Amino acid sequence: MSRADRYLRACRKESVDCTPVWIMRQAGRYLEEYRALRAKYSFIETCKTPELAVEITLQPIRRFELDAAIIFADILLPLEKMGIDFEFTKDDGPQINNTVRTWGDVEKMRVMNPMEEMSYLMDAIRMVKRELGGKIPLIGFSGAPFTLASYITEGGGSRNYVFTKSMMYQEPDTWRLLMEKLTDMVIVYLNDQIRAGVQAVQVFDSWVGCLSPADYREFVLPYQKRLMESLDKSAPHIHFAFGASHLLPMVKAAGGDVVGLDWRTDIDEAWKTLNYEPAVQGNLDPVALYGSQDYIMGRVKDILDRVANRNGHIFNLGHGILPTAPPDNVKYMIDLVHELSRR
Amino acid sequence: MSRADRYLRACRKESVDCTPVWIMRQAGRYLEEYRALRAKYSFIETCKTPELAVEITLQPIRRFELDAAIIFADILLPLEKMGIDFEFTKDDGPQINNTVRTWGDVEKMRVMNPMEEMSYLMDAIRMVKRELGGKIPLIGFSGAPFTLASYITEGGGSRNYVFTKSMMYQEPDTWRLLMEKLTDMVIVYLNDQIRAGVQAVQVFDSWVGCLSPADYREFVLPYQKRLMESLDKSAPHIHFAFGASHLLPMVKAAGGDVVGLDWRTDIDEAWKTLNYEPAVQGNLDPVALYGSQDYIMGRVKDILDRVANRNGHIFNLGHGILPTAPPDNVKYMIDLVHELSRR
Repeated sequence: MSRADRYLRACRKESVDCTPVWIMRQAGRYLEEYRALRAKYSFIETCKTPELAVEITLQPIRRFELDAAIIFADILLPLEKMGIDFEFTKDDGPQINNTVRTWGDVEKMRVMNPMEEMSYLMDAIRMVKRELGGKIPLIGFSGAPFTLASYITEGGGSRNYVFTKSMMYQEPDTWRLLMEKLTDMVIVYLNDQIRAGVQAVQVFDSWVGCLSPADYREFVLPYQKRLMESLDKSAPHIHFAFGASHLLPMVKAAGGDVVGLDWRTDIDEAWKTLNYEPAVQGNLDPVALYGSQDYIMGRVKDILDRVANRNGHIFNLGHGILPTAPPDNVKYMIDLVHELSRR
Repeated sequence: MSRADRYLRACRKESVDCTPVWIMRQAGRYLEEYRALRAKYSFIETCKTPELAVEITLQPIRRFELDAAIIFADILLPLEKMGIDFEFTKDDGPQINNTVRTWGDVEKMRVMNPMEEMSYLMDAIRMVKRELGGKIPLIGFSGAPFTLASYITEGGGSRNYVFTKSMMYQEPDTWRLLMEKLTDMVIVYLNDQIRAGVQAVQVFDSWVGCLSPADYREFVLPYQKRLMESLDKSAPHIHFAFGASHLLPMVKAAGGDVVGLDWRTDIDEAWKTLNYEPAVQGNLDPVALYGSQDYIMGRVKDILDRVANRNGHIFNLGHGILPTAPPDNVKYMIDLVHELSRR
């Protein structure tokens, strides 16, 4: 079986020759070739120049035996064309200059046409596809409506989500309008990526773990469910809610062919909670890559032992790889997953 | 039944006339009388001057019908006498100037005698006790060994805990020595607070939620268990692990007469997971206080309905109250808990 099939077969819970592996944020700062490019170009330039985005997308594929590529982009990019003014600070943290906190702010948000207004991304997808020549599948992605909403209400990252939750609790109609608009956008955005050529799409709900079950049920689930149901069925959908082990049954209810798991739940327990219905992706702690190779071996084995070669497991970290992770340990982990899971 | 009994009876799962309530960080920045004091004194001065610590401890008790007071202090204070050099930045976030990352760093940490070296805190406890005159019980507290370890390895707050986990994964012997020393210290520190007069003690494991179950089991549980078992049994022990719904069975195994719950798990589900053995404290999202009174009413009712007046519930927020929380809503919530839970 070639790397062309392994990942997509696992997304569909079909048998594979060994467990496929990719890494969230695999194209990024932990690679010196990425840092070399970033010495010459700003983060936003690398995102918006197709040749650079293509190069960065391919960097980890050249180094490692990864089973999927993921297009290089940022989850905030589509917001720009909706009228959100943001920039990336020196450590690449996003800062939004016109926060969205009132009904009027939400009404002003534009409807965006990704195929035309984000042609740089669609071009990059087409170019990566040509480069990969069918040998490795390409994943597209978007932020989930809640995570995008939290960024633009808070003005960036947040610890307590006071503005986001205050909108829910004080102005639920404003919240609903915001979520409707973001959901509409994400549906078109991901379907356009599929039309441009990506073979799977991942929805990142990076900050939804701050919510109680009751709040998720009321303020997120209806939108996330509509989103997952509206995506083109020709490409598998990965639903990754970070820090959300307490929300797992509702993440399942929202949908996704594959559910992404962080490291906070043992993968066998989590998969059981999901009734083994979706495939699962995960779930090594990104900081495990800082351990000794003995430690990494122990953690990788533990995950694979818990999965016991059940069909439908994609190995990944439980969150994006960190900028100071040692590339040698990344290679060690990837090769180990393939070796230890060989059927 | 007076406020003198309600809280301590609930800690012991005895019957009460209505559900007792207190608020984590109830003495703090959301109160204008606290901010007025802080305009004149630095945070560290307020902690180390018994008269000021007493005044701040009593401020929320004067305003609200709270069922317990908690001594005003900071979890980093005992580290000072162990040789850790820290300061509080303008937003009161801690910054440690001599991080602890090697065997040598850990070896250098001093054994501290809280009764003598933190006499300012012991004096404040005795003075608050006199002021309260037996009408309201006083809670003492400490950071848990893991949370203290993470502060001093990282140098402050952290998002990814790379240094903390790297020590676990690369230098487990160093980690064990660090945890042993901190555990020894916390045992003496809390037992000395009990000797000085506090009637209950809470252990805050604020950052332990970053760990996988396997890491908690190996690197935290043995120390946390020894700590909880070594505390003077004359005062109930509250064990609060924030963001740790995925670790709840092990939090229970570590021990505690009362287990604190954040808002990420419905309180009835969480209590069931705990086999209804410990009492529980929680679990309103602190941001709920920013909602309309209708919203607050709904959330308070939901928690009380789920508990259904089972003995052993102490109402609280699921984390410290936030500096911009509206005091009117705090009063509304406290009175509502008493009113709706009246037996």
